[in-house]
Amino acid sequence: MVKTMDLGLPNFEDVKIAKERISGLVKKTPVMSSSFINSLAGCEIFFKCENFQKVGAFKYRGATNAVLALSDEEAKNGVATHSSGNHAQALALAAKMRGIKAYIVMPNNSPSVKKEAVAGYGADIIFCEPTLAARESTLNELVEKTSAAFIHPYNNFNVICGQASAAYELIEEIENLDIVTCPVGGGGLLSGTCISTKGLLPNAKVIAAEPEAADDAKRSFEIGEIVPSINPKTICDGLLTSLGELNFKIISSNCDRIITANDDEIITAMKLIWERMKIIVEPSSAVTLAVILKNPDIYKDKRVGVILSGGNVDLTKIYW
Amino acid sequence: MVKTMDLGLPNFEDVKIAKERISGLVKKTPVMSSSFINSLAGCEIFFKCENFQKVGAFKYRGATNAVLALSDEEAKNGVATHSSGNHAQALALAAKMRGIKAYIVMPNNSPSVKKEAVAGYGADIIFCEPTLAARESTLNELVEKTSAAFIHPYNNFNVICGQASAAYELIEEIENLDIVTCPVGGGGLLSGTCISTKGLLPNAKVIAAEPEAADDAKRSFEIGEIVPSINPKTICDGLLTSLGELNFKIISSNCDRIITANDDEIITAMKLIWERMKIIVEPSSAVTLAVILKNPDIYKDKRVGVILSGGNVDLTKIYW
Repeated sequence: MVKTMDLGLPNFEDVKIAKERISGLVKKTPVMSSSFINSLAGCEIFFKCENFQKVGAFKYRGATNAVLALSDEEAKNGVATHSSGNHAQALALAAKMRGIKAYIVMPNNSPSVKKEAVAGYGADIIFCEPTLAARESTLNELVEKTSAAFIHPYNNFNVICGQASAAYELIEEIENLDIVTCPVGGGGLLSGTCISTKGLLPNAKVIAAEPEAADDAKRSFEIGEIVPSINPKTICDGLLTSLGELNFKIISSNCDRIITANDDEIITAMKLIWERMKIIVEPSSAVTLAVILKNPDIYKDKRVGVILSGGNVDLTKIYW
Repeated sequence: MVKTMDLGLPNFEDVKIAKERISGLVKKTPVMSSSFINSLAGCEIFFKCENFQKVGAFKYRGATNAVLALSDEEAKNGVATHSSGNHAQALALAAKMRGIKAYIVMPNNSPSVKKEAVAGYGADIIFCEPTLAARESTLNELVEKTSAAFIHPYNNFNVICGQASAAYELIEEIENLDIVTCPVGGGGLLSGTCISTKGLLPNAKVIAAEPEAADDAKRSFEIGEIVPSINPKTICDGLLTSLGELNFKIISSNCDRIITANDDEIITAMKLIWERMKIIVEPSSAVTLAVILKNPDIYKDKRVGVILSGGNVDLTKIYW
């Protein structure tokens, strides 16, 4: 088992430190709006465009903060993680920026475009069988051998603080938001969004959006303990994982609600964003707008901040 | 024949008036960059994102300026044009904003999505056979009947001044550009870009980009008289028309060079922009980057402003 130092739960002060630490290294992404989508939704939506973030996703914030928070001693043997998605690229680039090694454990069936992206940032890729058990044992062996610092994709104090900086910037830029909405998978973005929102705007609500076919976070939230996500089938490939322990604790006490949308609704919302805003978002990002459009009773006339989490899609595929 | 008042050629002072007139009504679009594309191109590129403009294209600038420049007397019977493309939507919306009628002559084989977009802005659509002759005669009859003011898509004093505001904003925001590059079809955007660039940055070069299979502007520029564009076949559906008289005169004496790229190069550039910048641009917009990538001798180490002209694409189609 890989050990990590117990830092307790991150709070608003920790987020401020993280935001300061990564400022100038992560992109301050723009906030965009569409009058057409606003009139359709009956509310004012402010989209924080993390699809424009480095590596195409908010994940670069958390990875950068986690890599920079390491002492020279902790950093000297590099960093390691298991991920086939945006966190892999994010950690690879963050390590490269600090000039340390990155070891990424990836399932051997990962799409070649993802392998190439990670290798392109100079990381070492270690392939494993595409199972959770193989992923964890391969990572454990790797960390034992290299003494690299393990940076979990979301269940990590400093990753959460980094992800929190997206909502922080949004709330600083757009006044008087009533609701902040973001997607939830492992809970890295959502737990960070909760800390920033409750710290800056105590009266605003945090509503998370989740694919109906991967609604483990909603069920965990309602039952009060982590329900694992077992083999979910949804187009939102970034939202398949179960909640992390740290993430769940923060979400339990700070998130106001988790609402689901089905894949058809998500694809409709995704197409609307592409068509009307001329920006590319991945399905995992569009679940937020899908939830807004199907719940006019909740969002009507509100000022809504939405974190568009990323834009890494397969451009040889038509989703609609 | 539809008569228009002879205002002569627009100059930099006219552009300043136009920019002031439309400010607050057109979007001040963002300027974006990609470090990946910069390293590929060997220069620093600043993309002015007119794909984010209202109606999804720079055309809204010219249409707005032309509609607002009309006196109440001239405007009272509405405006008319022939277009199946972005100018149709732009004029329809600009007329709606002033509260006057818009009559749009469109070929009866226009895609239904374009008809719906124009109708959605409250314009009257008049269908004609899909030939240049039918388009002109239908427009003439319409103008005779309605006394609407004809707003040509590009061969129009005030349209040119409006389009010029895109390069104006870009040059104001990004210091010390060496080259400004935009696509050329009828020459509305290019002639406006010439006026703004030479007015604000007399030492900067204006280089236009044109599809190889529709290179009438390049040939016109080199020969010194307008060569008509006859039935060109290119993916750049916004760049099929011949140069207008006013446009040609301005381009002849202010543009430094016109360079072509073929459709394969344009599609490669378009995919790069989608993939790396996470924004949607139409093929007619990507010809600029295609020209930059194939001419490193011209662009190397330069600071290059590029007008990304629009983002209206068929999202049910894969271009690569």
